[in-house]
Amino acid sequence: MPDRVPAPTAFPADVMVEELAPDWGFHVRSARELERFRSPFQAVEVHDTASFGRLFRLDGHFMTSERDEFFYHENLVHMAALTHPLPRQALIVGGGDGGSAEELLKHPSLQSVTLCEIDLAVVDIARKHLREVHHGALDDPRVALRIEDGFAFVRNAQSSYDLIVLDLTDPGGPSTPLYTADFYRACAARLHPQGAMTLHVGSPVAHPARIRDVLARLREVFPVVSPYLTSIPLYGGLWMMACAAPSLDPRALSGLEVDRRIAQRGLRDLRYYNGDMHRAALALPNFVRALVTPGR
Amino acid sequence: MPDRVPAPTAFPADVMVEELAPDWGFHVRSARELERFRSPFQAVEVHDTASFGRLFRLDGHFMTSERDEFFYHENLVHMAALTHPLPRQALIVGGGDGGSAEELLKHPSLQSVTLCEIDLAVVDIARKHLREVHHGALDDPRVALRIEDGFAFVRNAQSSYDLIVLDLTDPGGPSTPLYTADFYRACAARLHPQGAMTLHVGSPVAHPARIRDVLARLREVFPVVSPYLTSIPLYGGLWMMACAAPSLDPRALSGLEVDRRIAQRGLRDLRYYNGDMHRAALALPNFVRALVTPGR
Repeated sequence: MPDRVPAPTAFPADVMVEELAPDWGFHVRSARELERFRSPFQAVEVHDTASFGRLFRLDGHFMTSERDEFFYHENLVHMAALTHPLPRQALIVGGGDGGSAEELLKHPSLQSVTLCEIDLAVVDIARKHLREVHHGALDDPRVALRIEDGFAFVRNAQSSYDLIVLDLTDPGGPSTPLYTADFYRACAARLHPQGAMTLHVGSPVAHPARIRDVLARLREVFPVVSPYLTSIPLYGGLWMMACAAPSLDPRALSGLEVDRRIAQRGLRDLRYYNGDMHRAALALPNFVRALVTPGR
Repeated sequence: MPDRVPAPTAFPADVMVEELAPDWGFHVRSARELERFRSPFQAVEVHDTASFGRLFRLDGHFMTSERDEFFYHENLVHMAALTHPLPRQALIVGGGDGGSAEELLKHPSLQSVTLCEIDLAVVDIARKHLREVHHGALDDPRVALRIEDGFAFVRNAQSSYDLIVLDLTDPGGPSTPLYTADFYRACAARLHPQGAMTLHVGSPVAHPARIRDVLARLREVFPVVSPYLTSIPLYGGLWMMACAAPSLDPRALSGLEVDRRIAQRGLRDLRYYNGDMHRAALALPNFVRALVTPGR
């Protein structure tokens, strides 16, 4: 028997780790595991945690949590939804936790939200454990749930949308085909000429190549691509999103106009978004400007 | 002998961990330890890392790194330095790595930078390992090094400064007295009426109580306190800084005016700061507005 305990080579079992790079990441300790199973598509987990409340993971990646979901969902939805003068029909691809649907439904003009989630297990888990994320939006009469492949749904869809929200897992898992120019073209074909699509892209610090690739594919398809930044605690900090559109440009709105629309539409319970933050999200540090400049 | 290896309860030995909360943190793997010793004041480490290049720690806390230092130093310095119309004399308390001095010296009007660092070991280590952080600023003829306690130095100082930069470790270690209203009063007494002091405060997500406390103490002393936000990879994401002044208010500058001053002063090698980011840093999400509102 050795007389000293060897240094550990793995993380403790109750520590959930997300890597930004092979040598850099962040972690949250599980206080209690509430769910852990394999759906037909992916590994699903829900944990109670002290810092984030209930925390939801897919294939070992942090998706969202009760405490920090507003950073992600408000930024993913309101950049385009507030820029659009009167959004009525929306499509969410992914987003089975219901957080994006809840933010869309805050806009009183929204008549229908089609939520196309490939994995019924995600919706079931959200209904059971993540009410603080969706606040009942999954069962709102304006929401139509479609449990099917997002690519097939968009390709076969007949409807047009004012807003399309790609609320996907990172590329690499089941969502990989939804990061192709082919899929973006299928989405563009379903957008009203005044509509817009938003998506999250990655960390400008940890994933510069992914960001260049995704923006290049978006620019193949959409005349106006507006990258923007937010900070998402559960994703490890600074994170890029993008708004892609035939003509809608969120940079055209002043902060005052955004605040006016928030008041006029009676948007409730915004913990992040306001007119100043709309403008701030579109501001890019010099190294990010260089990263998102086409052809570099 | 057990027939299975028990789950580890500690992090692997080569993983450097920084906690934002007892159950939440981030980590960087050391590729090679370059320095590890105790100075008279604190534990000092320098590591090579794949993601951050050379990384510097004090008492087990990440201080700065070659690759991400610009997030911290540009934001800590230029918010006030660009708002000031003609900064000539500056004082840095802490900041022995030289990163803040380098940013200050980019302003051509700067005639002298007094750098008061309590721990000579930090300056030595920076000279030896962190040239990519200070680029020689520690030995610039305009920089006067004072190796002594910052509180004593400020209390006994006779000079006045246009800019004071508090480039400190987090409260809890040797810098604890430098987070008191008494110290802020001593700093205010050494500021020109048109001058300003900047400091970093903490994470609005992980340290709301610290932020309320520090801002309340600043407001006891300074008529104008402007909290602002940046994202610092090595600190785990969103981070608050503040500019405190008798009258100088960075919110009075438009982005265009900031860009004009950057061009006019010929500021070189800015990887983060520009006029848009000056305005963006001063924009606060709704939950941060609530946090920084006095009396809440």
